Amino acid sequence: MSERSLYRPEDTRFAVDAEVLIARLRPLLPAEGLITHEHGRRVYECDGLSAYKQLPLLVACPETIEQARAVLKVCSECGVPVVARGSGTSLSGGALPHPQGVLLSLAKFNRIIEIDPHGRIARVEPGVRNLAISEAAAPFGLYYAPDPSSQIACSIGGNIAENAGGVHCLKYGLTVHNVLQVTLLTIEGELVNIGSLAPDSPGYDLLALITGSEGMLGVIVEITVQLLPNPLTKQVLMASFPTVEAGGHAVAAIIAGGIIPAGLEMMDGPAIQAAEDFIQAGYDTDAAAMLICELDGGEAEVAEQMAKVEAILRAQGAERLRVARDEAERARFWAGRKGAFPAVGRLAPDYYCMDGTIPRKHLARVLKRIAELSEAQDLRTVNVFHAGDGNLHPLILFDGNHPGELERAEALGAQILELCVEVGGTVTGEHGVGMEKIDQMCVQFSTEEIAQFHAVKAAFDPQGLLNPGKAIPTLNRCAELGRLRVHQGELPHPEIERF
Amino acid sequence: MSERSLYRPEDTRFAVDAEVLIARLRPLLPAEGLITHEHGRRVYECDGLSAYKQLPLLVACPETIEQARAVLKVCSECGVPVVARGSGTSLSGGALPHPQGVLLSLAKFNRIIEIDPHGRIARVEPGVRNLAISEAAAPFGLYYAPDPSSQIACSIGGNIAENAGGVHCLKYGLTVHNVLQVTLLTIEGELVNIGSLAPDSPGYDLLALITGSEGMLGVIVEITVQLLPNPLTKQVLMASFPTVEAGGHAVAAIIAGGIIPAGLEMMDGPAIQAAEDFIQAGYDTDAAAMLICELDGGEAEVAEQMAKVEAILRAQGAERLRVARDEAERARFWAGRKGAFPAVGRLAPDYYCMDGTIPRKHLARVLKRIAELSEAQDLRTVNVFHAGDGNLHPLILFDGNHPGELERAEALGAQILELCVEVGGTVTGEHGVGMEKIDQMCVQFSTEEIAQFHAVKAAFDPQGLLNPGKAIPTLNRCAELGRLRVHQGELPHPEIERF
Repeated sequence: MSERSLYRPEDTRFAVDAEVLIARLRPLLPAEGLITHEHGRRVYECDGLSAYKQLPLLVACPETIEQARAVLKVCSECGVPVVARGSGTSLSGGALPHPQGVLLSLAKFNRIIEIDPHGRIARVEPGVRNLAISEAAAPFGLYYAPDPSSQIACSIGGNIAENAGGVHCLKYGLTVHNVLQVTLLTIEGELVNIGSLAPDSPGYDLLALITGSEGMLGVIVEITVQLLPNPLTKQVLMASFPTVEAGGHAVAAIIAGGIIPAGLEMMDGPAIQAAEDFIQAGYDTDAAAMLICELDGGEAEVAEQMAKVEAILRAQGAERLRVARDEAERARFWAGRKGAFPAVGRLAPDYYCMDGTIPRKHLARVLKRIAELSEAQDLRTVNVFHAGDGNLHPLILFDGNHPGELERAEALGAQILELCVEVGGTVTGEHGVGMEKIDQMCVQFSTEEIAQFHAVKAAFDPQGLLNPGKAIPTLNRCAELGRLRVHQGELPHPEIERF
Repeated sequence: MSERSLYRPEDTRFAVDAEVLIARLRPLLPAEGLITHEHGRRVYECDGLSAYKQLPLLVACPETIEQARAVLKVCSECGVPVVARGSGTSLSGGALPHPQGVLLSLAKFNRIIEIDPHGRIARVEPGVRNLAISEAAAPFGLYYAPDPSSQIACSIGGNIAENAGGVHCLKYGLTVHNVLQVTLLTIEGELVNIGSLAPDSPGYDLLALITGSEGMLGVIVEITVQLLPNPLTKQVLMASFPTVEAGGHAVAAIIAGGIIPAGLEMMDGPAIQAAEDFIQAGYDTDAAAMLICELDGGEAEVAEQMAKVEAILRAQGAERLRVARDEAERARFWAGRKGAFPAVGRLAPDYYCMDGTIPRKHLARVLKRIAELSEAQDLRTVNVFHAGDGNLHPLILFDGNHPGELERAEALGAQILELCVEVGGTVTGEHGVGMEKIDQMCVQFSTEEIAQFHAVKAAFDPQGLLNPGKAIPTLNRCAELGRLRVHQGELPHPEIERF
């Protein structure tokens, strides 16, 4: 996979003189702050999507906003691509380096500047780890809500770039709902404040635009997030289902019942088995599907909602309902879910983690169709996902050493994403488009819509230097792929019957 | 006020031949769909900010997307400004016509296309009234959450243009948090789908960018919003305070206590008195300030939270706590609040309704400072506002017939908005910038930030034809005003001590 050409010709059009660039950048950075040797650059050749590898031309590690600003100014003047990187945990190749570009590491931007318990905000640098914010807020009974699986390692700057989610984003929102303000460096090195501490901000909403923009619009150098008070009570329930479809219907029924759980996760039979073998969480390995539902809030509130959820689940055919008896059991129920990905990794030499989102009401149908598509490709697919959000994470198992299996896995992945679009969903839930899903963007969006994205990009980065070749495909690329777009506005709901 | 020149020379730079324009537009519209006579255009000369009046060159009333598209294409080709208008209830002059432009009325786009109770969404045209959506959803036990005071009259398209809020947006979010998808016509007449039915959308988040963009980026022709299930229980509490500051502290304490009420409104003494005289809601006219706190959810949940709120309020010095005994009393408590603006209108010949937002923790200080500023201008200010959001609505009372009073009221309004910016807030909460607050934008934003707004605008509307002269000031305008910007990032919190 690493041998494949990842960038297209139009994304590697830059004429960069490495020697000149080094001479200009060297004096702007601290002694160890410019990495030119191959062994040093090798560390940065991939992110969490390790199948995609590319050496950067140079790696710059500024320590201050002024240094970052100076690096960007030079790159802007010299027409050099810039790929910003936090902890490098992206699962879509968002931080994959550019062969002609500077990999701008923000790892040194790791200070928690301020925790304001009264205002319930944290002001931090972009390289601060997601979990470190909650740890710093814990003495005040506060926490930062979005909790991607990688929260021990991933940085808040990367979370904003990808609009990261997590188990609890069903109730507490994605990153975009928890960030109040960012300070952005434009590619020209100008410092711009975006957002405010107030609930709404005048002018265009650039904060949401920046959030999830995958490093294409600017480089974030300071962030203010909101903190939430720790819930008084948490309670977790597990329920087994005889079929995956029944589990899907149960999810829709809970939400339709007016309950927004703190977390609502689903695992199918193979995922349950793998997690149980790996973690011994006490899962029901006879179930075809399992829901984990966490409720939080006041004690009476949680008890009231738990009774309602139990009634809904039983009406939907749930078997073997179990409520965690204590905090230790609650932690164990979650441990299995959180360890599910590495657990699945033991089932096959390779797996490919997809990330599509669909309207919840289509969950049961889409899961059924994924099983059919997998069978047609002669591959196994395991499902572990944020059911409440309709955010699927099908894990396609394959063996990269068997000729053709990788290609079949990729083909199946593309089919699954196109299925998501067909039912009114999207090609990414929380992992971003990056390098991985850029072709599927041609399926998701019309020519006019992609042209509008490019116009917005040009409003921030007219030379196209920030993370070229990611997130938004060129119209050329879509045309060459001959992708026929399933138009959201024109696909009537009855057409879903086609599968 | 109507005699003043509202548009600056750079906003009226368009060279439009009305005869040619009429000849081109006439065949594109239905018989009554192009209004050219002055008496017909007079109807559209102002919106809810009636002090600002301007006759449009023409009024176009398309009935279909194709007609709207054709009108925009002609305007784009001829370089003619376009101001879109829904119900015309904007309080900031957002729908104020342009003297050289077409006023594009979307009043005929008033169909509710679909209520999908299972998917919990409504698909509607932009001219549908806010309340009509909840009425159509009511048979399914669902409603549309954002509830601006004008919800009987205001249109959902205008709600999106202004990112409208309302009493319940503290818990249920602003318009931006409740809209899933829009279909937008660009000024060139291209149809673009933005957003999705999934929780997140790939590509840049243009949905949030469009929401609150005040008609500057495109014309919305179809909208999908999410619907929420009606809460099982609602309960309202009123509490009196001996000082406005104590009320402000109590608001901060409730939120800090981890409770997000469905509504948390504050009225000061003069507002209480005015509302009571007008509505007889049973308010405590001896109080210097009053909080109305609504909780909703399951029965046990509401009871639990109500007990907690009562304890917090008592600890903050609240007097005469009263919980509504029944639905009729709950409605009466709210009737006073909802009638507060017309009630205040009886206190003086004119009032000027401001709309600034501040971080909640500064509520007490800012209210005190507003009282001081009012006294210095020899004017009375009455406060009725969304306290939980920190969204202030100071009502400045004046008599436009007394020479100089209008100017003093405007000066006081500007001082209040600048005070909001100084404490880290914004110049608008939910009414938008429009024509009214455009000068204050120079205080809120730096030159680089305003330049970035203009670049984004150009990505959608390169000729600057959509709603010229609104929302985002030209850099020229800011320079002429000589406004010194209080820079968010550089104003340390201790400086708040200055007042």
